[in-house]
Amino acid sequence: MLEKINKPNDIHKIALADFPQLAEEIRQFLIESVSQTGGHLASNLGAVELTLALHNVLELPQDKIVWDVGHQAYTHKILTGRKEGFKKLRKEGGMSGFPKRSESDCDAFDAGHSSNSISAGLGYVRARDLLGQNYRVVSVIGDGALTGGMAYEALNNAAELKTNFIIVLNDNNMSISKNVGGMSSYLSALRTAESYTGMKINVTKNLKKIPRVGTALVDTMRKTKSSIKQLIIPGMLFENMGITYLGPVDGHDMRQMMRLFNEAKRVEGPVIVHVLTEKGRGYEPARKHPDQFHGTGPFDIKTGKALSQKKGPTYTDVFADAMVNLGEEHDRLVGITAAMKEGTGLVRFEKKYPDRLFDVGIAEEHAVSFAAGLALGGMIPVVAIYSSFLQRAVDQMMHDVCMQNLHVIFAIDRAGLVGADGETHQGCFDLSYLTMMPNMTVMAPKNAWELRKMLEFAVCASGPVAIRYPRGGAYLGLEEFESPIQYGRSEVLYRGEDLAVISVGSMTEICEQVCRELKERGRRPTFVNARFVKPLDTALLDELSRDHKLIVTVEENVKNGGFGEHVAAYMEACHPEVRVLPIAIWNRFVEHGEVGSLRAKIGLSAPDILDAIEKYEEQQ
Amino acid sequence: MLEKINKPNDIHKIALADFPQLAEEIRQFLIESVSQTGGHLASNLGAVELTLALHNVLELPQDKIVWDVGHQAYTHKILTGRKEGFKKLRKEGGMSGFPKRSESDCDAFDAGHSSNSISAGLGYVRARDLLGQNYRVVSVIGDGALTGGMAYEALNNAAELKTNFIIVLNDNNMSISKNVGGMSSYLSALRTAESYTGMKINVTKNLKKIPRVGTALVDTMRKTKSSIKQLIIPGMLFENMGITYLGPVDGHDMRQMMRLFNEAKRVEGPVIVHVLTEKGRGYEPARKHPDQFHGTGPFDIKTGKALSQKKGPTYTDVFADAMVNLGEEHDRLVGITAAMKEGTGLVRFEKKYPDRLFDVGIAEEHAVSFAAGLALGGMIPVVAIYSSFLQRAVDQMMHDVCMQNLHVIFAIDRAGLVGADGETHQGCFDLSYLTMMPNMTVMAPKNAWELRKMLEFAVCASGPVAIRYPRGGAYLGLEEFESPIQYGRSEVLYRGEDLAVISVGSMTEICEQVCRELKERGRRPTFVNARFVKPLDTALLDELSRDHKLIVTVEENVKNGGFGEHVAAYMEACHPEVRVLPIAIWNRFVEHGEVGSLRAKIGLSAPDILDAIEKYEEQQ
Repeated sequence: MLEKINKPNDIHKIALADFPQLAEEIRQFLIESVSQTGGHLASNLGAVELTLALHNVLELPQDKIVWDVGHQAYTHKILTGRKEGFKKLRKEGGMSGFPKRSESDCDAFDAGHSSNSISAGLGYVRARDLLGQNYRVVSVIGDGALTGGMAYEALNNAAELKTNFIIVLNDNNMSISKNVGGMSSYLSALRTAESYTGMKINVTKNLKKIPRVGTALVDTMRKTKSSIKQLIIPGMLFENMGITYLGPVDGHDMRQMMRLFNEAKRVEGPVIVHVLTEKGRGYEPARKHPDQFHGTGPFDIKTGKALSQKKGPTYTDVFADAMVNLGEEHDRLVGITAAMKEGTGLVRFEKKYPDRLFDVGIAEEHAVSFAAGLALGGMIPVVAIYSSFLQRAVDQMMHDVCMQNLHVIFAIDRAGLVGADGETHQGCFDLSYLTMMPNMTVMAPKNAWELRKMLEFAVCASGPVAIRYPRGGAYLGLEEFESPIQYGRSEVLYRGEDLAVISVGSMTEICEQVCRELKERGRRPTFVNARFVKPLDTALLDELSRDHKLIVTVEENVKNGGFGEHVAAYMEACHPEVRVLPIAIWNRFVEHGEVGSLRAKIGLSAPDILDAIEKYEEQQ
Repeated sequence: MLEKINKPNDIHKIALADFPQLAEEIRQFLIESVSQTGGHLASNLGAVELTLALHNVLELPQDKIVWDVGHQAYTHKILTGRKEGFKKLRKEGGMSGFPKRSESDCDAFDAGHSSNSISAGLGYVRARDLLGQNYRVVSVIGDGALTGGMAYEALNNAAELKTNFIIVLNDNNMSISKNVGGMSSYLSALRTAESYTGMKINVTKNLKKIPRVGTALVDTMRKTKSSIKQLIIPGMLFENMGITYLGPVDGHDMRQMMRLFNEAKRVEGPVIVHVLTEKGRGYEPARKHPDQFHGTGPFDIKTGKALSQKKGPTYTDVFADAMVNLGEEHDRLVGITAAMKEGTGLVRFEKKYPDRLFDVGIAEEHAVSFAAGLALGGMIPVVAIYSSFLQRAVDQMMHDVCMQNLHVIFAIDRAGLVGADGETHQGCFDLSYLTMMPNMTVMAPKNAWELRKMLEFAVCASGPVAIRYPRGGAYLGLEEFESPIQYGRSEVLYRGEDLAVISVGSMTEICEQVCRELKERGRRPTFVNARFVKPLDTALLDELSRDHKLIVTVEENVKNGGFGEHVAAYMEACHPEVRVLPIAIWNRFVEHGEVGSLRAKIGLSAPDILDAIEKYEEQQ
């Protein structure tokens, strides 16, 4: 069957009876592909029939599907002529793991971050209506993404709509790990409401299936007007907001789903179709451990075991263990995560101190202001959020934490390049948005030891403190350097003359190679680990200016607003005789690929840095 | 009565029977005070009894009240010993218009931006419970603030709580102007549910009052278990999420409210108390025109008319009229505002093109991603949001607009110092957060003419374009300079030698004085209006470097990540022989006060800039 699927809408040629086989073939294809390349598996296995059903009732590219987050769009990619792309999935120059308009005109919106699909879809709908066009818009959002506030902002606005807009709620009772909150409980209640046939038109049938409600009530309900009816049928929370609710429906039953989608197409106004899916469906290891197979590296299909051996601790491991240790001594220490208990490592803290870990769902804004309240209430909150996701909470960091100068610690994982997830997940802006915030202290560790020490330092400090560290294996080198962390002071690894290299966090490992090579070339560089990006160690800069001609700064962040610009501006003002060469990412988004290779592409590898220094010195 | 109120909890000495008189006296006091100083009036008049009732059932400062936005806390200030502060309300060195912990230990959380009070309150609650303390936490949030997604994120998390947390929904059916969206319609339905007595315990009573539901249904409901009961009583949307709902109650009836608040104190878990208030209550002009009296300058009490005559058009006026004109020619132009139709001036666009203006509520995140969808659907969206509020949507600008390089225009009003509203509203960070975004173009106009031209330019450009302009009167000077806007090119107002002053937007007016004075001192400065903050006009900088020793940049933005740093870094890299003196706001929040005076305080007045240049040149 899969051989027949080579371009968009080929699915219309498949007989309905053959769909189960096609679904099975797609699942096998996905399992085999991802077992070799790595990628998102569990979420994609859950969305096979859902995607088939959608494609079957829609005409692409006229109709628009907006995938929320986008880590469930592999079947969509297969159905739109990108089967071959899976050979180089998430590899440099290969296919992205997320929807991407540059890949296909069937991708309506680039995705990566959560909870924005209803907003984008509503934008399409309003444009369609204003231009008098006539296509379908479908936003597909998971129950996890529904914990993000902007999804609610969009629902609130969609409610006013008088024309068709289909919102598919892909409900697997998971975000990346177990979903949280009142809405999640509510969806659970809907799931078990025994009204599984889904069709809203069968109000009476549904009512009869709700337990504990007698016939008298059902009869009365039938006589009352519809506004009252809606109160008691599933989905009244959405109906109360003015959004028609259809479902729940079995997300692995194509016939049922297509029936409901066709029903949804007839609704004049916004309509939520509640589809129940199973993460990891069809592959037992993924079904049993959906969080492990959310994003995975290459694995052995038979056992489900990862192929690559873990080499050593990641920065996440180091942070996780440090939190557990600090939690012992500091009983006011609490952890906050936005649906990333596993990803941030805080799951270990929770095991030891179950009362002191708060998973708020995909709700970065709330996470930060909640932390502000915790700090005022006497706790020491550590908010652990990935660099690119923390962009969601810039205002809350500024307005609720920095302005009140509250002691909130930000543990910023996945800072710098993250690799295979690409543009949407690279953490290349945090040094810019963090250093613009008054009162904020910004640190980056050179290695595992230093992350531990910085966290200890932050717990005992005051005011807001951010520590940013990269994805992946923690650097264990340079461990002979262990001068104590002092506020605002860099660490001079070795003192030379003439040329100084100042590295930020993750780039220290790279700059060690740079400095070694410089020494081999007969230079005597000074090598500094910045430690603090804010405040700048101006005392050190003053000191270096006495016998250095050039200061090279190296950071895994965009140039604009980054460390290098701050150093350049300071030196320009105070030591204009000393040159500054800032090495950073130049005003661009960085695509997916392997981190080392991406660094070389954007000028952040050791040879690039050496070249840049050489060229700069030649020009002087 | 008001004489007896001099410190926190003095209200406990007032007999219940005397409350109406106290409320009346507070209203008179507020009207008189604000008529002289200006300030937020309508919202404060609406919250008098609500505040009295809360203070009466709480003990401050042990108990915590978290005011959302904070523009309704004047009565709270009066009741906590700050009556005298109203003489210098919002004046430099005087009392803030918002809750401020530095003013009183009865202020639990500094406020200004919207929709964060439930998050902060929940933080207090969790801290209280972990520390085994025993105080009350009350978050007071308006129905407008409930359109902001983070309020929903917080509700979603509050739902899991097993201990007391009171959320007062201060519902006046307004945000700053008329409230929008599905939640708003839902609240309207609750308001008219004829269950005004409010007590949830009277389920049967309430049920009888709901029209269209017969006795049989009520009888059946009484027999069924509580989960079904909740479906039909008011507030089931909240109850579905797991939050007890009490109300609605008349927010000007102290007895009823106190009864309900005391009831709420006994709930083990989160509880919403739905309080209906009237904006502008007790002052007819404010009641009739609550938007006009939301924030007001000094006015004549008898007529309600503003005392200060409007001198000329504001930048908001200029933008508003330009939008109306451009809307004629460009029928795909649409406007988006986040509950600021009046404040941004887009109300005029709506009058002319009612279908093409979208007020999304206080939902900046949604506004931006919605605009991304509109752009993809073929429209030219202009998102008009104040500088400090746009901080809420940094991720959406980056991830949904810039990454896809979509043609979305950001009209950023209130950029730079805004004056009386203080720290939370100063727009002093946008140049930093905008210039870190790849693909974003950033402009700032020198005067009214240039704002019009920049908007025209932006409409015809491609990719994301931001135009930032200040609060208040549009500068009408320098109108002899009207070279056409060219992408990435600054405007040389006059060419001199040796010293160049490059001003960003609003600072051009100030820098004109600086340059005039420099000329009087015998200098021949070059005077440049930057126009583009991103991309930098490097061609001009190259050209200037030929015969200039010093470039002074002047901007109303923080130094870190601002225009000056970008220029300094560029010159450092390419023209190290030329000095750069960046004049900007130095790593601090700026308090409330009169804009001119604040500028002098932070070194942005003409004499300050002249001094800074003089000192810098002396040091060289």
